Amino acid sequence: MVEVKKKLEQEIGEKVLKDLEKGENPYLDIPIRSLSNVEYDEKTGTLRLKEEKSGKRFLFHTGHAKKFMQTMLVSAFCKELIDQDLHTSLRDLYYALKTTLPNSAENTFNEQSESDPIIVDLEVALKILREQLHLSADVRGRVVGNVTIRDKGDLINWAKLGSGGWAVPSNVEDIEFRKVNADFILIVEKNAAFERLNEDKFWQKHNCIILTTQGQAARGARRLIQRLATEFEKLKVYVFTDADSFGWYIYSVIKYGSISLAYVSERLGTPKAKFLGLTISDIEKFGLQNYTIKAEEVDIKRAQEMLNYEWIKKSPAWQKELELMIKKKIKAELEALSGRGLKFMTEEYLPQKLKEEKNLLD
Amino acid sequence: MVEVKKKLEQEIGEKVLKDLEKGENPYLDIPIRSLSNVEYDEKTGTLRLKEEKSGKRFLFHTGHAKKFMQTMLVSAFCKELIDQDLHTSLRDLYYALKTTLPNSAENTFNEQSESDPIIVDLEVALKILREQLHLSADVRGRVVGNVTIRDKGDLINWAKLGSGGWAVPSNVEDIEFRKVNADFILIVEKNAAFERLNEDKFWQKHNCIILTTQGQAARGARRLIQRLATEFEKLKVYVFTDADSFGWYIYSVIKYGSISLAYVSERLGTPKAKFLGLTISDIEKFGLQNYTIKAEEVDIKRAQEMLNYEWIKKSPAWQKELELMIKKKIKAELEALSGRGLKFMTEEYLPQKLKEEKNLLD
Repeated sequence: MVEVKKKLEQEIGEKVLKDLEKGENPYLDIPIRSLSNVEYDEKTGTLRLKEEKSGKRFLFHTGHAKKFMQTMLVSAFCKELIDQDLHTSLRDLYYALKTTLPNSAENTFNEQSESDPIIVDLEVALKILREQLHLSADVRGRVVGNVTIRDKGDLINWAKLGSGGWAVPSNVEDIEFRKVNADFILIVEKNAAFERLNEDKFWQKHNCIILTTQGQAARGARRLIQRLATEFEKLKVYVFTDADSFGWYIYSVIKYGSISLAYVSERLGTPKAKFLGLTISDIEKFGLQNYTIKAEEVDIKRAQEMLNYEWIKKSPAWQKELELMIKKKIKAELEALSGRGLKFMTEEYLPQKLKEEKNLLD
Repeated sequence: MVEVKKKLEQEIGEKVLKDLEKGENPYLDIPIRSLSNVEYDEKTGTLRLKEEKSGKRFLFHTGHAKKFMQTMLVSAFCKELIDQDLHTSLRDLYYALKTTLPNSAENTFNEQSESDPIIVDLEVALKILREQLHLSADVRGRVVGNVTIRDKGDLINWAKLGSGGWAVPSNVEDIEFRKVNADFILIVEKNAAFERLNEDKFWQKHNCIILTTQGQAARGARRLIQRLATEFEKLKVYVFTDADSFGWYIYSVIKYGSISLAYVSERLGTPKAKFLGLTISDIEKFGLQNYTIKAEEVDIKRAQEMLNYEWIKKSPAWQKELELMIKKKIKAELEALSGRGLKFMTEEYLPQKLKEEKNLLD
């Protein structure tokens, strides 16, 4: 964390001090991050900010002064967090910094919606993650497998955690991987499937790690996946979701990053992830015709939107699946596999998908 | 699980067979569980079904036949789960049993909303938990502390799980508590507070277990709390939530059970739980006046409803808090404590509340 602390000191604190010493109007460079500024980067295989255009935020400027003050407050608070080795949430930061300025009726922050964007400003400007500023986000996710990590002085063996597994914390920056004995990591959208796989000790039989995101992957889970994927080059990454737009979007976010977090895709996205979740073609292939659900308007609309994604445009296989859904107006859940028997998922579907790994959607 | 299997065999399977052998119209006794049938039981201190009135569900009856068939299907499926030692979710059960009857256009189940109530029927009729039928519900919750459990052959030490903690599974029936070295269990509504407490090793300093429910407590978490509270009589139970109707309702459900699950309150409710979360009085007492939020219509309405709860009627202290909220139209979150400093919660608020344990709301 020394590096991050140095960035706060040099690029925020000392920068402003120097401006003042030179008798100039102090300012901070804050990159612009409008949605039109997001693009798919073929080289890294993730979404990113198109140009790193930045705007100057001045202290002596009627339109900037308040945001300038807020930026300095948040920066100082985060430096304090790092110094004291404390972590906290975005909401706690808001409360901790909310105060009325002396001799005025003006609050530093009136709503959390004022402090949150400042944190993003710092992430983009300093090219760091909020987790490195000791700020934590929503938390979801549990994991099992032949992995031993060191966290806060504890040696934790993910293979010895019974039916529960290790709860993925919001911040995984300081975790040290001591032993990773696995060929791949299987990322499962739903906890029910995770519990079935864990009960069947799928990770033991197939030498893998199993992680459930419990819906859209939280930042902690995404960063954990990304760290495993980059620190262990041979480790493959598979995403196992429902055959619907939401499931496919979960995959897309794990692989490419999300539009709203495009500025940190490199640290949260895992380009080598492949999709071994359900597809519309799978419905026929695995005899799930009796277990489909009618696709709603919102599914169809979402699928049509996805057809415009740049990475989808480059993938005939994904286009085919999306068009199939739009044409057939059906979708299917992971639980549909139980229609073929409770062990069908672990003993038939997944082994066959893994055997035909080359055909997985990318 | 032998007992549950026997119940399925004797009270469902053999019961129906005997009726058939006697040449009678086979039926099952299913207790009635309308909302008007729920009451607060002073003796156990939980919500329960008022009278155990039951209705007969006949095989040869145009209005009953389909539900009778569904009950038999679900019973047989659960017996199979127990025999094979498999666990699955309500949704998987629905898919596994959904099929079209031979020579007809009639499905066994058309929607999950048809199979879910059958499971509740079995829970009430056989006086068991769905978890004992090997069916799992939603899952949420993480826990740390000086506790060692045995689960699925693994010895798991909750004190050695770093910043994450143990992920509470949906089913905790078979967990064995090997060592419980704690004076109390602190149940925290929000994960951010849980992570702060874990980071400060609050459980070490105060010899306790910390569990976050991450919102309303899931069944697995409620059952884990109930088991700890009953198997370790000296263990005290404290609930730490926001000062708002939702937070107080979370407390109420942990302590008394919920209206919709009144038939299993004895196994999911923890009557000895006490409230050490935020109250409206705390706002002044702990100097949080600058960090309150305006109570919305829905909060006020909820508070007014709660004033009619039987257990609230018996508690002048709770009445006072609810009336204070309605009058002042304010509420406060756990994060408000950060307004007094990041360590205020762990070093001031909680120790003081614990010192004044006798004054805690009950």
